[in-house]
Amino acid sequence: MASSKGISVTILSDEAEDIAQAIHQKMDENGDCRLDNGMPLIHIALVTSSPKAVDTANTQVLLADPDLAAEIVLDCHTLRWIQSTWAGNAPLLNLAKTDYLLTGLKGVFGKLMREYVFAYLLQHARSVSDFSTNQRASPPFWKTIPRFPLDGQTLGITGLGNIGEALIPVAHAFGMKVIGLSRSGRSVSGTEKMYTAETLVEFAQRSDHVVNLMPETPATQNLLSYDFFRALKPYSVFINAGRGSAINEEALLTCLNEQCFKHAVLDVFRQEPLGSAHPFWHHPRVSVTCHTAAESQPSDVATVFLDNAMQFILGRPLHYRLDFEKGY
Amino acid sequence: MASSKGISVTILSDEAEDIAQAIHQKMDENGDCRLDNGMPLIHIALVTSSPKAVDTANTQVLLADPDLAAEIVLDCHTLRWIQSTWAGNAPLLNLAKTDYLLTGLKGVFGKLMREYVFAYLLQHARSVSDFSTNQRASPPFWKTIPRFPLDGQTLGITGLGNIGEALIPVAHAFGMKVIGLSRSGRSVSGTEKMYTAETLVEFAQRSDHVVNLMPETPATQNLLSYDFFRALKPYSVFINAGRGSAINEEALLTCLNEQCFKHAVLDVFRQEPLGSAHPFWHHPRVSVTCHTAAESQPSDVATVFLDNAMQFILGRPLHYRLDFEKGY
Repeated sequence: MASSKGISVTILSDEAEDIAQAIHQKMDENGDCRLDNGMPLIHIALVTSSPKAVDTANTQVLLADPDLAAEIVLDCHTLRWIQSTWAGNAPLLNLAKTDYLLTGLKGVFGKLMREYVFAYLLQHARSVSDFSTNQRASPPFWKTIPRFPLDGQTLGITGLGNIGEALIPVAHAFGMKVIGLSRSGRSVSGTEKMYTAETLVEFAQRSDHVVNLMPETPATQNLLSYDFFRALKPYSVFINAGRGSAINEEALLTCLNEQCFKHAVLDVFRQEPLGSAHPFWHHPRVSVTCHTAAESQPSDVATVFLDNAMQFILGRPLHYRLDFEKGY
Repeated sequence: MASSKGISVTILSDEAEDIAQAIHQKMDENGDCRLDNGMPLIHIALVTSSPKAVDTANTQVLLADPDLAAEIVLDCHTLRWIQSTWAGNAPLLNLAKTDYLLTGLKGVFGKLMREYVFAYLLQHARSVSDFSTNQRASPPFWKTIPRFPLDGQTLGITGLGNIGEALIPVAHAFGMKVIGLSRSGRSVSGTEKMYTAETLVEFAQRSDHVVNLMPETPATQNLLSYDFFRALKPYSVFINAGRGSAINEEALLTCLNEQCFKHAVLDVFRQEPLGSAHPFWHHPRVSVTCHTAAESQPSDVATVFLDNAMQFILGRPLHYRLDFEKGY
């Protein structure tokens, strides 16, 4: 139950235990989450992955996976706020109940994406796996390997929106220029130039490396095809961390084999998990990750929840509030 | 021969051909290196790795490895300027001839070092080699692997001087804090706090990851020993790109085996090349690179030379000029 000042939260998630542990850890580190009498401001009433376990009659605050919350939310008559563990929240936005605050998980993906993108760009810039191969050889091999510095190069970002913008200051810190491609082509601070689908080839020609972050829409289906990959450079790294459907897979493999570009780093696929016979797994110049580029972790959920819980307790506006009317 | 406006340069280096090619390429890209009549402002008179081949009587401008230049410089009576291909220039600074301009290779190492350091920090933050292992398994393995985000962590830099300062804006762009350790402990812009050898353990305790860039001096010998490595954290990455002598090797290996820290990335060693039986090569939690973290390449030499050549032609002060009196 909510105290006069604190709140009581039910955690309903496939990762409920890990999220609860992350919340406890952050509250321990951050002494100000307490009332004057030393009681915690935030009380965890229940930690469960089962919607049936939730005390729907008395639940005011839920921290929940939206698909699980959707099973019970119509019965939660005292509900005031759901902090979702997802960015997208269709399961809840599509229901008739709209008399509560719904907040999404946001503000964490850009921070994750920038580490992913530069991990792989730098892995190639500094030939990390070649040094590792030489080290593990018998006998090991002391040898300089050419570098391909990012300094002075141009990073192209297709689907340059909120998440992509988080890459820009990092690119600048490494001495890179940034260009972008978006539906509108509207100017974005920190970029040299913005392009649209109509000028995709020119965009690719001007890029040294390209990161795709485009969402899945009818317009992005197979947008990155032969023209695009052939316009890259023999040293270019292409990273797909948007959606698998944006890529013509045959074009990607053909152009990689024709040495049109150096390496593909693929995090998203038309079918996930990627089938074990898929050629992407087995190509020496493809790196596969598992839709993990900007996958939130329990500690990210805990951070966003605790920030918002303090806003809630203090009666201030919540971050990342979703609009039932607009549907996002 | 120098024209009335341009200069004629002799390239004397073990990498003379590669440097000449890089200079030609950069001049082609950069159209303003030409006289009004279309002749290049910079004429390459000779490209050689042999000091004996140099026309000492008429050489005014040398772009040279300082050990090779030292063999002939006393005979170069019309010499006006040597651009060295090295940062350190003891072979020339130790000679009696001081009636010419001597410039070093500088301003390129910070840009190289920041890419090296973050390549390896991010490799661990994003478990790049674990994803690669899962991809190359048979059948391949679709699996999330925990991340260790740099965001919010603290980077400690021992020997924080010019090169280390180039890491600070990158660390900030990734959401990291920076602390430093130097001989003086003097404050450095962008750091949270500076430490000295006396407070080394406190420095290590406050760091999440540590990069060593200390030069070799009597005071730095074996400075990083048991106390230091035991103060790191089980998830810490330690990078040595300073000098091998700063490390007590036995302490490093013992503490690594005791899981005091996660991984050592070593670029410099007491003896180079590192002997093939040395345990560093064979330890699963050590990455060895080959004194390549900030090794200049012919294109770096070309960039510094061309910038300085334009200064020389225009009668402006040269960058990175060395002082024969001070010896650096």
